[in-house]
Amino acid sequence: MNAPIEQYDDQIHKNMANAIRALSMDAVQKANSGHPGMPMGMADVATVLFSKFLRFDPKWPTWPGRDRFVLSAGHGSMLIYSLLHLTGYEHPTMEDIKNFRQLHSPTAGHPEFGECPGVETTTGPLGQGLATSVGMAIAERLANTEFGGDLFDYHTYVIAGDGCLMEGVSQEAISLAGHLKLGKMVVLWDDNSISIDGKTDLSTSEDMHMRFEAAGWHVQSVDGHDEEAIETAIELAREDERPSLIACRTVIGFGAPNKQGTSATHGSPLGADEIAAARVELGWPHEPFVIPEDVLTNWRKVGTAGAKLTASWKKKFDGLDAAKKADLERRLNKDLPAGFDKAIDDYKAKLAAEPQKVATRKASQMALEVINGVLPETIGGSADLTGSNLTLTKGMGAITADDFSGRYMYYGIREFEMCAAMNGIALSNMHIPYGGTFLVFTDYARPAIRLAALMKQRAIYVMTHDSIGLGEDGPTHQPIEHLASLRAMPNLYVFRPADVVETAECWALALKAKETPSVLSLTRQNLPQLRAEFTAENLCAKGGYILREATGGKPKVVLIGTGSEVEIAAKARDILEAEGIATRLVSMPSTELFDVQDAAYKASVLPADALKASIEAASTFGWQRYTGLDGVNIGIDSFGASAPAEQLYDHFGVTAEALVAAVKNKL
Amino acid sequence: MNAPIEQYDDQIHKNMANAIRALSMDAVQKANSGHPGMPMGMADVATVLFSKFLRFDPKWPTWPGRDRFVLSAGHGSMLIYSLLHLTGYEHPTMEDIKNFRQLHSPTAGHPEFGECPGVETTTGPLGQGLATSVGMAIAERLANTEFGGDLFDYHTYVIAGDGCLMEGVSQEAISLAGHLKLGKMVVLWDDNSISIDGKTDLSTSEDMHMRFEAAGWHVQSVDGHDEEAIETAIELAREDERPSLIACRTVIGFGAPNKQGTSATHGSPLGADEIAAARVELGWPHEPFVIPEDVLTNWRKVGTAGAKLTASWKKKFDGLDAAKKADLERRLNKDLPAGFDKAIDDYKAKLAAEPQKVATRKASQMALEVINGVLPETIGGSADLTGSNLTLTKGMGAITADDFSGRYMYYGIREFEMCAAMNGIALSNMHIPYGGTFLVFTDYARPAIRLAALMKQRAIYVMTHDSIGLGEDGPTHQPIEHLASLRAMPNLYVFRPADVVETAECWALALKAKETPSVLSLTRQNLPQLRAEFTAENLCAKGGYILREATGGKPKVVLIGTGSEVEIAAKARDILEAEGIATRLVSMPSTELFDVQDAAYKASVLPADALKASIEAASTFGWQRYTGLDGVNIGIDSFGASAPAEQLYDHFGVTAEALVAAVKNKL
Repeated sequence: MNAPIEQYDDQIHKNMANAIRALSMDAVQKANSGHPGMPMGMADVATVLFSKFLRFDPKWPTWPGRDRFVLSAGHGSMLIYSLLHLTGYEHPTMEDIKNFRQLHSPTAGHPEFGECPGVETTTGPLGQGLATSVGMAIAERLANTEFGGDLFDYHTYVIAGDGCLMEGVSQEAISLAGHLKLGKMVVLWDDNSISIDGKTDLSTSEDMHMRFEAAGWHVQSVDGHDEEAIETAIELAREDERPSLIACRTVIGFGAPNKQGTSATHGSPLGADEIAAARVELGWPHEPFVIPEDVLTNWRKVGTAGAKLTASWKKKFDGLDAAKKADLERRLNKDLPAGFDKAIDDYKAKLAAEPQKVATRKASQMALEVINGVLPETIGGSADLTGSNLTLTKGMGAITADDFSGRYMYYGIREFEMCAAMNGIALSNMHIPYGGTFLVFTDYARPAIRLAALMKQRAIYVMTHDSIGLGEDGPTHQPIEHLASLRAMPNLYVFRPADVVETAECWALALKAKETPSVLSLTRQNLPQLRAEFTAENLCAKGGYILREATGGKPKVVLIGTGSEVEIAAKARDILEAEGIATRLVSMPSTELFDVQDAAYKASVLPADALKASIEAASTFGWQRYTGLDGVNIGIDSFGASAPAEQLYDHFGVTAEALVAAVKNKL
Repeated sequence: MNAPIEQYDDQIHKNMANAIRALSMDAVQKANSGHPGMPMGMADVATVLFSKFLRFDPKWPTWPGRDRFVLSAGHGSMLIYSLLHLTGYEHPTMEDIKNFRQLHSPTAGHPEFGECPGVETTTGPLGQGLATSVGMAIAERLANTEFGGDLFDYHTYVIAGDGCLMEGVSQEAISLAGHLKLGKMVVLWDDNSISIDGKTDLSTSEDMHMRFEAAGWHVQSVDGHDEEAIETAIELAREDERPSLIACRTVIGFGAPNKQGTSATHGSPLGADEIAAARVELGWPHEPFVIPEDVLTNWRKVGTAGAKLTASWKKKFDGLDAAKKADLERRLNKDLPAGFDKAIDDYKAKLAAEPQKVATRKASQMALEVINGVLPETIGGSADLTGSNLTLTKGMGAITADDFSGRYMYYGIREFEMCAAMNGIALSNMHIPYGGTFLVFTDYARPAIRLAALMKQRAIYVMTHDSIGLGEDGPTHQPIEHLASLRAMPNLYVFRPADVVETAECWALALKAKETPSVLSLTRQNLPQLRAEFTAENLCAKGGYILREATGGKPKVVLIGTGSEVEIAAKARDILEAEGIATRLVSMPSTELFDVQDAAYKASVLPADALKASIEAASTFGWQRYTGLDGVNIGIDSFGASAPAEQLYDHFGVTAEALVAAVKNKL
């Protein structure tokens, strides 16, 4: 492999690893906050991985062909910051390391994607680094199949701690990785038997080897402080066709003579005395933040070795045929193909000519038939609800262990891993992942949705059965608080289209949102097409717009609906108008996009002097910011019930009649 | 065991099982909605379990000593409804079964705790029945240790499907159960190799036996249609000291000649023709919803056999010494002990005498020292953040596989399972579970929190590090949208106390909320004691109250703060008052409790004619319902950052100065 250092002997290794240990303990001490134990324990493993195996180039951190390194145990962030600094990335500089955990420094408490080059994914919420890595490894297989092994043939290495492996999502992740035989995944488990509360035997007795073997993994165990054993194990892991776990038995806080091997090193600075003692123990007499020339030189050799790899890759890339190269560049830039807008417009024109009364989940599938035809990069999937979410379109083909030429993932009943894998796929920039389940089960996947929002990744969640309108499945399956709780999340679009046209428009917006994930909230039940006339303009782009104007153009009442309740609001408007009450109907498919319009537009849609009434078959929480305290909010602030959908709408009072009565009561 | 039927031969068994099959396919057909495949596949297993092992009494569904039966694969709800009807529970009646999935019927689409006697926990969200069962099995061990095996010696039987076992939480559950050696748990896995999308090999290749063995379980495999093999397996499972998995190889939709063994039977009615064919195949010529006398008699014998068990139990219960019996009755009624209010009052008086500046997480621990002293039924715990959540008090003792006399659970890094197990513990009514993690990680546990709210269970979540005030850990650890997203959930109290006194009051409210789970949102950082004077009244009980009145009593401005921002609002009030602007300070520890006060009280706290300004270091989403559209909302509508806490408050503008400026801008 790389092996850029010719005379790589014990002492060289030891010094290189100690550089990580010293930077870690010193940075945590200076910040007076952080986790020194893990970087000190895993310094040997990380040194072997980076110096002997990892293919990367600090000068081109986003090189598409690079190996991925994910620190799933993100609290040990000084490990990756040390590695990135030592190998010569532009950041973190030594100044950045001295500013560990300080405002505006790229060295955040946990590794943040986008803040620091070389950080492949944000970690810290345990288990998710591992879970996201599975998506990276899937992306590699997909790109390898589509563009060839010359360009895409990378490994995904993960350092995971005991905490990662205790999280449930890790089981979903290893099960899916084993099923897909992701042989280029190598998980280095920091097997130190220590968690924050103390020894791991306080809370677990699992046989981790057997567990990974049960999931179809290749498993080894090594002394995590024996660099030769580590090297051999990684070699064997790379040779095996299965994904690999290497249990690295380490001493947490290795080198801190009085605290190592205990939870005292886990989440607090070691203290000046212990650090001084560790310097003696490790044979590292250098001042804090000083790396001796020879050690730094060796580390920098590791970094500069990457230039050859990227040069060779660039040559192959340049040798691609023009169309393929352009397609690849387009995708890496997250651009949509030239024909995209026209395809959507043609489809909208067709709908105007032949209106459709369908559920918006069906409308989503119809839109996807168009989209998947013009976008080769969409990767669909569902958490075992394909026929309900309607996420599969013609000819996509299943992605299987033996064949990655398909474009559809059967994620299994693993909502969390589905969304985490989607993050990993999105991070490659080669594909746009979308995945489906019921809206209520966003709860199962919420931590991964949050990471997508935080990392600004274009993941698209096809969340069907989005209200009591799903009917008989009852309260466990009926979302109530979910729309509000997702709208409260920063940098997430929640689209709730009202008909087949809005569904197509919302899909287009989601695909064009390069830095924002999107939830598509879709119905099980049929909805009439409310948008009869073709407009080239994407009316949903402003989040909320006037769907039906009040007679005379000056509304006394403004009704605001979303999704399936726009139809109900339209009926209410007809009733009010028939009674001579000038009533405007506003469709609000995305409150987030409406909120960022200018004040004049917002006031033009929701005039201050009109009575404003919202209707949504969900919690009313949050709607007061459009209706004010004197408006009307029709919704459901309790859990749902099991019954046919129409009866539930009556039962919970989400009806045109109820809306009319509430409005008239306020006039 | 029970074996109430003397001549239990093949034909008797077959008919009893077919009664379940017939009711299931007919009820689903009549509802035109539901999942017939699972009840038909597992009818044999369930018949053996109920007729030969399960200790229950339909006349006393809440008998504390009963075995627990949990249908984790809740979509197969007709299985449990059939069993409950056939064994003679008051509900479901045959009428209820004919009204499967209809409004106001106890036979909801998925089994709902509290809607139908004999349903031990709400299931449907996959994996959670199993995850909750672990808590039930823990509760048995705790009660067994505390009150003796004469009264508490029950088994927990679970039917789980492939979907349950693919969910990550199932791994957390089996890992914890194996660690605690919960030998009285028996999981009957409906091993039918079919999920909604098709064959399970579409998405999984796990060796389930090995996986459970890795978690310390006893594993067997049987033909799920061979009643003798099932019986033997359950016997062996009961004998083994480890928790047991029995893989029951079944044919989904057993008896439907053309559809059995396929996903076509999973989630849709079989259709009239196939049902007719199944009647022939099964040898069940009876009309829909007709159970022949002899079959019903045999089933009812199973039910009536329970009377002997409960009579014997009642005798032992009556033989308890008076104090122990009273304590047990009190706990089963969810009442607090007589001394509780006085203990809290004494503690509040002490705080008035000696004010404390502490973090509310520390205040929580101080309150718990008092509470755990007077309440023997609290069971504390943390998902590996004991020293951060401060959930452990003196002398609680760890709960371990060998010793269930302790009162503290080391749940491991398993937030979801912690909250699911808390549901299982709470459902026993014998204990009040509380458990801690960081507020941001409610996302990991949200599906279980939702079930607690839906099931009206008194679980208490000690959620510390509740804002950017946690500082350096950065955006992955800083909750932003979490308060809003939890407040949007029905039947959940979110308490965010402002100081040590409010923390004690909120704890008291949470403990007294018999039918509502509570989140305690607590700071990492120190807060001054704002409540200097002792009040016997629990001021937090009204959700929001006047903490500092405006000069003259008629406020021009009302500042509303929660938790750590009340201190900031108090400073802002001082500044505004000093400038002659009459300003009231309202502390709002619980918006839910405030919302249910009468209109007069609410108007007296938040007068219509005052400018209202909210401040909370979190999403402003939802605050407009107190401030209106013309008020001020200070908060954070983006993700956080990694830095020392004070700098973050400045950086995000959550300061007294910013609040003052925003208020003056509106005046």
